[in-house]
Formats: sequence, C-alpha cells, structure tokens
Amino acid sequence: MHTDHTGLVAALDIGGTKIAGALVDGGGRLLVRAQRPTPAREAAGTVMAAVGEVLDELARSAAWRRVRAVGIGSAGPVDASRGTVSPVNVPGWRAFPLVDEVRERVGGLLPVTLVGDGVAMTAAEHWQGAARGHANALCMVVSTGVGGGLVLDGRLHPGPTGNAGHIGHISVDLDGDACPCGARGCVERIASGPNIARRALDSGWRPGPGGDRSAAAVAAAARAGDAVARASFARAAQALAAGIAATATLVEIEVAVIGGGVAGAGDVLFAPLRERLRDYATLSFASGVRVLPARLGSDAGLVGAAAAAAQELQLWAVPAGR
Amino acid sequence: MHTDHTGLVAALDIGGTKIAGALVDGGGRLLVRAQRPTPAREAAGTVMAAVGEVLDELARSAAWRRVRAVGIGSAGPVDASRGTVSPVNVPGWRAFPLVDEVRERVGGLLPVTLVGDGVAMTAAEHWQGAARGHANALCMVVSTGVGGGLVLDGRLHPGPTGNAGHIGHISVDLDGDACPCGARGCVERIASGPNIARRALDSGWRPGPGGDRSAAAVAAAARAGDAVARASFARAAQALAAGIAATATLVEIEVAVIGGGVAGAGDVLFAPLRERLRDYATLSFASGVRVLPARLGSDAGLVGAAAAAAQELQLWAVPAGR
Repeated sequence: MHTDHTGLVAALDIGGTKIAGALVDGGGRLLVRAQRPTPAREAAGTVMAAVGEVLDELARSAAWRRVRAVGIGSAGPVDASRGTVSPVNVPGWRAFPLVDEVRERVGGLLPVTLVGDGVAMTAAEHWQGAARGHANALCMVVSTGVGGGLVLDGRLHPGPTGNAGHIGHISVDLDGDACPCGARGCVERIASGPNIARRALDSGWRPGPGGDRSAAAVAAAARAGDAVARASFARAAQALAAGIAATATLVEIEVAVIGGGVAGAGDVLFAPLRERLRDYATLSFASGVRVLPARLGSDAGLVGAAAAAAQELQLWAVPAGR
Repeated sequence: MHTDHTGLVAALDIGGTKIAGALVDGGGRLLVRAQRPTPAREAAGTVMAAVGEVLDELARSAAWRRVRAVGIGSAGPVDASRGTVSPVNVPGWRAFPLVDEVRERVGGLLPVTLVGDGVAMTAAEHWQGAARGHANALCMVVSTGVGGGLVLDGRLHPGPTGNAGHIGHISVDLDGDACPCGARGCVERIASGPNIARRALDSGWRPGPGGDRSAAAVAAAARAGDAVARASFARAAQALAAGIAATATLVEIEVAVIGGGVAGAGDVLFAPLRERLRDYATLSFASGVRVLPARLGSDAGLVGAAAAAAQELQLWAVPAGR
C-alpha cells in the first residue's frame, strides 16, 4: 500500500440544504473549509456553479497543491459506476454527471471518488468514530430520512453503485403504509423524525406552547413521561430493531452505529431499540449485535468522503478492522 | 494465486437426513461418492461416527492421495470462527467441534473449511450455476426451511461465522406470526413449504384423494386453478420479494437465484414473485435485480462445500464475477 502522509483529499458533502467542502489530511483533520447553500430548486448548472464556488475557494488555499484526490459524498440516489447523482431533494440533478463535472473543474487530473451520503458517514465512523476497530458494521443516520452504509470484512462496502446500506428503504412491514419510494412499510416510513412526529400527533400528542411539532419536541415530551410520545419512539425503535436484525442476519455485523437528529433523543430511542433488538436478532450469530451512538457530528460527511476516496486509492492506511 | 489442477477437495454435505461426501475436482466433477443416513436423534459420537464412515469410504479410493483440503457445508447454525456446528435438526450436536473432529479423522494435516449449507449452495451456483458471472448475488433454498448465501464483489461472502445470507430469518412483517427462531414475521415463517401448505389448509384448501398435504400438492392445485392454493403461493412470493428487495437495497445484488423443493412449483411461485419484486425493490440501484431458478440440483451442497474450501485456500481459480 502506498501511504502518502502529506497528501490531502478535497472532500465534498452535497446535501439538499448545503454544499460543504474541506481539505482533509491523513489524520482526518479538516484543514480548510468552504460552504455554500444548495440552490436546490434551481437548474442543474446553477447547482453545479455552487459546487464550483466551493472547490474554487478550497483551491485558493496554499494547501491545495497537496491534494491527491477528490472524495464526494452526495445525497442519493447516486450511481458511482456512472459517476452520476439524482438527489431526491435536488430535482434539477437527474443522472447529473457530477464526477466528470468536478474532475474538469479541478483540472482534469485528480481521481474523483463518489459515494452516497450514508456510505460516507459510515466511512467516517469506521475510520474515526464508533465503528472503529469493527470489521463488520452498519452505520445509520436517523433524521429527516433514514440512511446508512456497511463495513464488511474490515472495509467500506459501497456496492457497485455506491448505495449499499440503504437500510431506510427495506420493508419490515410488507403490508404496511405506503412509502414515498413506492414500497410499503419501509424502516424510514416508520422511524424517521417526521414519521415519529406524525404518529405522535395522530395518536393525540399535542405540542407545547411554542408549537414545536418536531421529533425533538416529541422526544422531550417522552422524556417528561408522555405515554403517546414514548409509544411513537417505541414504534420507531421496533422498526429500527427489525432492520438492524435483518442486516445482522444477512451479512453478520458486530455493531450498529446510529447518528442523526433522531438519535439525539438518547435513551428515549436507544432503550426500546436495544430491548426490541433482542426480539428480532435471535440467531446465534446475530444476537450479539450491539447498538452504539455515532461519535462524529456534522463533519462526518466530509471526513467520510475523504476516507472513501483514500480507501479506494489506497492513499492513506485507513485502519482496517481487527 | 496458486492453481493446482490435479488437487481434489473432499467435500461433506451434512443435513438432518443424510451425510453425503464426495471427492471434487477443479472442474466441479464428483469423482467418488459416499453417503450415510444421519442418525439425527442419536448422541454426538454416533453422528460423528457416521461422518467418519463417509470419510473412510472416500479415503479408500485411489484418488484420495490427491486431496488437498476438506470442505464442509453443514445445516446451521454453524460457527466457522470456532469450527463448531449446532444443527437445529441434530440435537446431539450443540457447539460440536466438527472441524477438529474431521481434521483428526483425516490425519490432522489437511486444511478444513466449514460453511453453512446456504453458503455452500451459493458457492456452487456462483461457480457452476445460475449465479455464474455475477459479482453480486443472493442464492436461496426454499424448502422445509428458507436458507441462503451471498456473493459480494465477485467472492463468496460467508461472514465471520459462515452464516451470512440467512434470508429465511429476516423479519418482513414485524407484527406478524411468531417464528420458531423467536422473532416474528420471518421470510421462512411465510414462504417455506410447510407454511405454504398450512396457510392453504387453514384457508380451506383440501388435498386430493391421495391425501398429499405438501407444498408440492398445493402447487399442483394452484396450477390447476385453485384460488386458495394460488393465494398461498402468492403470499409466499410476497414475503420472498420483500426479502430479496431488502437484500438488494442493503448490499446491491444483480440476481437472486432460487432453488429447493418449493422453487419446483415454477411459475406458480416465480410469476407472482417477479411481480411483487417490482413493488418492493423500488430504488434505482435495486430495481434491476432479477430472479433466476437455481441450476444445480441435489449435488449443490457438495460442489459448494468444495468451492468454498477452494476459494478460502485459493486452491483453484474459482471464477470471479464480471
């Protein structure tokens, strides 16, 4: 393995709200940062121009000459095999050739790696966070949506198109409620923040004087003992438990790492989740799976995009599992 | 890779009914065979004695001197990391040290590889059958139970304990019927042969004059137009579709290969399965997954046990994916 300790990766984290960029070193440090709001409702070229501004700002730093690769984590779906992205919340980008556009923007010579945002978060948690040292792990973001990624045999497993680990859209309730993806009873349809809030409201929970109807407000009510609020989190926990158990049963994982806003609910989510996981992860080889909160915060997307590129290019010795 | 074209693998396929053995060459041919009934209700030593008789019979062949390894596919659960097996239908074997016992029986010098029977069948279909040439595949046996295995990135993915791909025990109906495994709504609880037959009987289907109450009899009735029989297969197909879609969404597979007795129902199973798969495999990277019938018959376990050992030891150039 060629290990270049002075090399940097220019990382991009592209979401429906913001486009973040950074130069990341082999220790996972963010040396230079840039950010623009995502013009999510604009035409393809306008969105790409914002990406270009982020890259230009990074390129003005003296450290840019040490950049060896570009790593992109993008809201999905992505298609890493074609280098295209079609983020649900950026309708102007459909099969948009992001890899080619970025490669051209940085001079045509740097290798460019693309993965989905769930895979990027997973690369970060495996490199520097709660999944470190685990050869087989699922990492998840539970937030407005539910995303994820997999580490198998000590390495990130992005899958051929960079989308593996999409746990939010596996069905755990085959006759359940219709999901916007077209299927029924998906984990996301039950466990995402908006669905936790909706279910609480439908069951009679009422927001406080401030009118906050978010999952965070439901979590606060649950912590204060509100039974309806607790039940909505318990149902989300059940769906997450079934999804994590399915993953452990299908690919054998040691840990499931959970980040994202909904994970901020803490024990209101994690206590019933650990309890229900015992109900669904029953086979000997799956029953030991542990649930851990994510360690990296909002920089996980940038750190992970860099880690994914570094792994693909064997740029740094990103630590393997045991 | 060291490729030894003259080397053989002594393969064992251990199930609740029979213990089969064969010497397998680098072309997947079975040169010598031996078989004993499994004394499934007897003590551990009696079961192992039957395995020993199979090995002894193989060892009496002139070809035995070309054996370079032993490959074992066993009814699960297995623990490849410890070399032990605990087959559900062989109660005398609980954490039974099968790898050590077999190694000793063959003289202590040959390497011994252990995988679960679903993983073995997958290795066979990837090497010689319907999954050949596919870098990412799920192979399943739908029979008395539902088992399976995975090919990822062109290689068999047994997982750390040799149990990965256990699709029969992922829950696709989190509030569904209790499964003997302890969970609820598992794929096997809905789609196995006995459950197809039970559901048809519970819904008013009656066997013909011969009194055959098996899933094969339900399949015959379905082909003859019986609506209740068709509905029971359709429900099994729906559960299989949700499970295959979950696998495609979690790890990105191109094909799902289905063998086993229930797959013998043909279009009664495959037609509704392909239709429902479109309902559940909705994301762009998962929607292209194809369902194929398995090509290898009852020898798949032996061929696959040999292939799994050959892959682990890099004994033959078992063909990789595309």
